[in-house]
Amino acid sequence: MSDAAQEPITLDDLRDAWHVLSAGDRSEAFALLTRGEGEELFLSLPAGDQAGLIRALPRSAQRSWLRLLAPDDAADLLQVFDPEAREALAELLDDQTRQEVRALLAYAEDDAGGLMSPRYARLRPDMTVDEGITYLRRQARERLETVYYLYVLEDAQRLVGVVSFRDLFAAQPGTLVREVMRADPVTVREDTDQEEVSRIMKEAGYLALPVVDAGGRLRGIVTVDDIVDVVEEEATEDIQKLGGMEALGAPYLQTSFRHMVGKRAGWLGALFLGELLTATAMARYEHVITEVVSLAIFVPLIVSSGGNSGSQAATLVIRAMALGELRLRDWWRVMRRELATGLALGSVLGVLGFARIVIREAVSPIYGPHHLLVAATLFVTLVGVVTFGTLAGSLLPFLLRRLRLDPASASAPFVATLVDVTGIVIYFSAATALLRGTLL
Amino acid sequence: MSDAAQEPITLDDLRDAWHVLSAGDRSEAFALLTRGEGEELFLSLPAGDQAGLIRALPRSAQRSWLRLLAPDDAADLLQVFDPEAREALAELLDDQTRQEVRALLAYAEDDAGGLMSPRYARLRPDMTVDEGITYLRRQARERLETVYYLYVLEDAQRLVGVVSFRDLFAAQPGTLVREVMRADPVTVREDTDQEEVSRIMKEAGYLALPVVDAGGRLRGIVTVDDIVDVVEEEATEDIQKLGGMEALGAPYLQTSFRHMVGKRAGWLGALFLGELLTATAMARYEHVITEVVSLAIFVPLIVSSGGNSGSQAATLVIRAMALGELRLRDWWRVMRRELATGLALGSVLGVLGFARIVIREAVSPIYGPHHLLVAATLFVTLVGVVTFGTLAGSLLPFLLRRLRLDPASASAPFVATLVDVTGIVIYFSAATALLRGTLL
Repeated sequence: MSDAAQEPITLDDLRDAWHVLSAGDRSEAFALLTRGEGEELFLSLPAGDQAGLIRALPRSAQRSWLRLLAPDDAADLLQVFDPEAREALAELLDDQTRQEVRALLAYAEDDAGGLMSPRYARLRPDMTVDEGITYLRRQARERLETVYYLYVLEDAQRLVGVVSFRDLFAAQPGTLVREVMRADPVTVREDTDQEEVSRIMKEAGYLALPVVDAGGRLRGIVTVDDIVDVVEEEATEDIQKLGGMEALGAPYLQTSFRHMVGKRAGWLGALFLGELLTATAMARYEHVITEVVSLAIFVPLIVSSGGNSGSQAATLVIRAMALGELRLRDWWRVMRRELATGLALGSVLGVLGFARIVIREAVSPIYGPHHLLVAATLFVTLVGVVTFGTLAGSLLPFLLRRLRLDPASASAPFVATLVDVTGIVIYFSAATALLRGTLL
Repeated sequence: MSDAAQEPITLDDLRDAWHVLSAGDRSEAFALLTRGEGEELFLSLPAGDQAGLIRALPRSAQRSWLRLLAPDDAADLLQVFDPEAREALAELLDDQTRQEVRALLAYAEDDAGGLMSPRYARLRPDMTVDEGITYLRRQARERLETVYYLYVLEDAQRLVGVVSFRDLFAAQPGTLVREVMRADPVTVREDTDQEEVSRIMKEAGYLALPVVDAGGRLRGIVTVDDIVDVVEEEATEDIQKLGGMEALGAPYLQTSFRHMVGKRAGWLGALFLGELLTATAMARYEHVITEVVSLAIFVPLIVSSGGNSGSQAATLVIRAMALGELRLRDWWRVMRRELATGLALGSVLGVLGFARIVIREAVSPIYGPHHLLVAATLFVTLVGVVTFGTLAGSLLPFLLRRLRLDPASASAPFVATLVDVTGIVIYFSAATALLRGTLL
């Protein structure tokens, strides 16, 4: 990249290459943009990347870039720095913004308070509609987060109603704001979790929600564009947990090798220790394998069938829970349903397994006269393993939620590990019962 | 539920129970709400649920409920009905809306055209700012989708610029709209895929994007609240595919038993047929198992370790691709990185496996003087299997994308199946090489 720095660079080129550049290359390329292009790029970057650029700038230049940001975005950026650097940067903001940013930094990042912006449009209930529009025009000189909703405040910032831009503009000029506003609006609290905020916004169908404190005072608004990030972030976390690892919390290419291995080795090691139980279970049936070695050849097939069916069920239930389609009290409905599904799916695989042995035996005999018994063993085992896998996969997320743990931790590999041991026990128990006196 | 219908019902109760009610119960309960509550509920429902309620109403009542909806929402609702019923319902709309809805219905559901709303706020370039605000006030009587951006149109709807509400309101009264607008705005085409729209909106950081046709004429706008649904929908599809099944396309409890089994049996059956190869691979090494039966007891442990590491890698890469963090040309970087990660993770598991055999042997000897060779076999196998699993899991999504297939189809179970067979081959090859002349 160092040689490219000599050539003229366009904004599009830089955007394109952004994700593969090192911090140093980014700063170098950023410095080559015109101020206008630079601003466009800077404002479109996530807080972590903005912080990287700010860090490399001399203090004199930091001010003008920091001041481009709305208070909630500035707070997100400052969050990236350690307390000392954060304080030094906060000093560069104008007084009002610094105050707002400090208030925002006091909230947890995953709460409504951490998402909200203090730059909302406000009216007073006793204004006329015309006065309201003039007042709004004055507020527009600040950087308002949205003007789709106007928040009607009494003394001490107490929220008494909301009026949509449309209703305000469409009303007769002399009408009072109080008469066109919707009283008793849907609100969230500062400490409402971001997933809950996202659910409420979706249910209510609004583009922004007011955030109030315990006294009903308006502290800020959360807009739907913040929710896009929340939804994406939560989905990424769930997906990574479902894949059997800790959530990375950063883009793939920006995660250091050390950090990456750490996030993956923990779960992989834990799953391995769990899987050691399969070796214990197998050892218990070593005498069966010694007598009929060819029984061993179906072990991987059986454990993976259980794992796959469990993985399907767990994934479905975890996602439905995350979307609010399933709640704790639905476990009984889900269990009945998955029991039936498991039996159906197990029968399908059972028939495939049965057919495989019968066909194989016709081509070149292995089990001789008892091959139908072996086929029956496989059928019974597959029905049992798939049903167990389906039930375990669908109920484990409910159990985790009941214990106030994250259901997404019931990842595909976790369920598979649980089901593997059981699969081995079911298989060799079925074999012992069905083959006793013939092959065993 | 039929008895509950006799009692008074509150909106909150109904919302709470909604997801478990049948279509009949929903209509019955809906009829008991006041008009105001009914409207609130109706407007917050997804199109499929709205359609269910509309279907049950007499034609005379359908009109007033349909007319509550903005054109894009009405189009989504009509999409649920078959063409004949759709036509009959469209007749109930007012002329302007019907025309807009018909135009929207012509677009594919997953394109920008299928997401957009035709109700945007518009200005002309040669208006003064004051004229613009008055003009805006007149438009507010329609149901505008957003007023945060105002779209500046020349003749024949040609889009020439965008001005933010803030810039319009903050400008001097006599200024021309042309002077405050941003020329050459970011746009999308009617046939731009919704994932692409979502990516562009995120990159540009806007709350709405204009949708133009080939002639640069403005056809509608896509707002960020539509993108929340897109992001959620795409994540759900990816999660279900990662879980080893077809995407359901409907909430869990609203999917019929038949449909559910169908969506799951296909992939489960295909994976089973793939796993049959493990039986073939095991059969090839039956002579090894016959000689050292206790080698068989580690087979589930080994195949699952490969599967788990593959599942981690595939999940990470697929999500990073969906978020635009990784592109096709990054495969080489990812491969080098995952090779190192795989070797590191494999060594961790290898040491655990080695230790397990050494400790087990100290407690009660199984392998006798050659137990260190068996432990070495397990170590080598785990390093090989985990490295192979990690590489296969991370590169398969690139291969699928290269073939223009959905990378998310490289699900955890799919990768596991691929890795299982290889794991068996690696294990018995290592055993044959290391134990020849001692145990074998």
